[in-house]
Amino acid sequence: MIDVIKIGGAVIDDAAALSAVLDHCQVLQRPLIVVHGGGRRATTLAEQLGLPQTMVDGRRVTDAATLEVVVMTFAGWINTWLTAQLQARGVNAIGLSGADGNVVRATKREIQDIDYGFVGDVAAVHAGVLHGLLDGGLTPVIAPITHDGGGQLLNTNADIMASNIAASLGEQVALTYVFDHAGVLRDVADETSVIPELRAGDVAALVDSGIVTAGMRPKLDMAFAAVRAGVSSVRITNAYNLGGGTVCR
Amino acid sequence: MIDVIKIGGAVIDDAAALSAVLDHCQVLQRPLIVVHGGGRRATTLAEQLGLPQTMVDGRRVTDAATLEVVVMTFAGWINTWLTAQLQARGVNAIGLSGADGNVVRATKREIQDIDYGFVGDVAAVHAGVLHGLLDGGLTPVIAPITHDGGGQLLNTNADIMASNIAASLGEQVALTYVFDHAGVLRDVADETSVIPELRAGDVAALVDSGIVTAGMRPKLDMAFAAVRAGVSSVRITNAYNLGGGTVCR
Repeated sequence: MIDVIKIGGAVIDDAAALSAVLDHCQVLQRPLIVVHGGGRRATTLAEQLGLPQTMVDGRRVTDAATLEVVVMTFAGWINTWLTAQLQARGVNAIGLSGADGNVVRATKREIQDIDYGFVGDVAAVHAGVLHGLLDGGLTPVIAPITHDGGGQLLNTNADIMASNIAASLGEQVALTYVFDHAGVLRDVADETSVIPELRAGDVAALVDSGIVTAGMRPKLDMAFAAVRAGVSSVRITNAYNLGGGTVCR
Repeated sequence: MIDVIKIGGAVIDDAAALSAVLDHCQVLQRPLIVVHGGGRRATTLAEQLGLPQTMVDGRRVTDAATLEVVVMTFAGWINTWLTAQLQARGVNAIGLSGADGNVVRATKREIQDIDYGFVGDVAAVHAGVLHGLLDGGLTPVIAPITHDGGGQLLNTNADIMASNIAASLGEQVALTYVFDHAGVLRDVADETSVIPELRAGDVAALVDSGIVTAGMRPKLDMAFAAVRAGVSSVRITNAYNLGGGTVCR
């Protein structure tokens, strides 16, 4: 069994929550891959550099200057810092972007209604390199940056990367999405209202009725994509209850 | 034989020179490790962020904010971009900082006359991970950032990292320092005045007489440290004549 733990941006920005996840990684007795999001830091850096940021449906419109900012922030500071924190806990972490070892190749999103710029949709995960690193006792820590194989880096959604990576591994995988709520909630204001188990067929009705917020839809789609691809266990939870939250079946 | 090619900051900043080195990496038929410097980009970013930079003897005084800038620039943009350019040439590159796989651990430089801040002196290279990556057909691309094993990232000189990495590999290694001159010059204004071969005993006299500039001294010290450590071939040259330049014996 391999654990794939996706650490969301809101958790990256919360020192206590992030410590809780990293402490969990330290005591895990199974091979582990960490995938992390970005958080507010890229937006802050962009603002400091005078680059106005545009978000559309939670996706960052990524021009060339913004691409540099997200690569520097996600693959640079956050990834390297997380790796050092895991090393300090005795976890032999190795930070990667999708370009490293050609682990995640993507294609630049085609312009339809909106030109997202240098945003990538995952085209292929090369699990062989990940298995090689895991077999060598290493813990890959993967930033949400990919490449197109032609030298172009691309900003890529971390939820999608985690789902695709988990699905690619070809063996028993437990995928955990860690975000800033205790699970999928029936009432977004009530952290005790976790829905303990969800099936793919439930999602549309829960969103349509407003019980599950529309903002949860992309994450749920990725969770159920992993379920469909055969990932053994898919869970959405917070940093303090990694074995709890919502199980997607 | 393993090649270790150190790409200096001035080469990183020169698109044509950098392409020439990357093209060379593509046609090499031997295992390869790339170590790269930083270049002006970190200084530019620091200036954009309103962080005044202080250099002492070619070393950047690295406070906490500057550390973030150099990690973002060196381990973030430059390392990830170089990796993608090598991937585009069919080289299965994997970008690393010293924290990745605990490859290069350092100690924060002690405060003597000058407090350099978060600057690291190499304490240990763990060549096992590098050999594992090379054996897996990967080409490590190493940024001049290390960690102290306790979660602290450190800004580290790339010439020193390259020398220490080359010396750690325990087999035949060809170390090439690529910078913006054709070799060690008798006359810094004349690129045809390359000294084809230098011995450690020659260096002090050449510097004292002013034939070799004082700024070359740290690089030469690292080159000869590698020679003393048993590195088979140590060369200082430019991007267009990688088999030429100055051989250190």
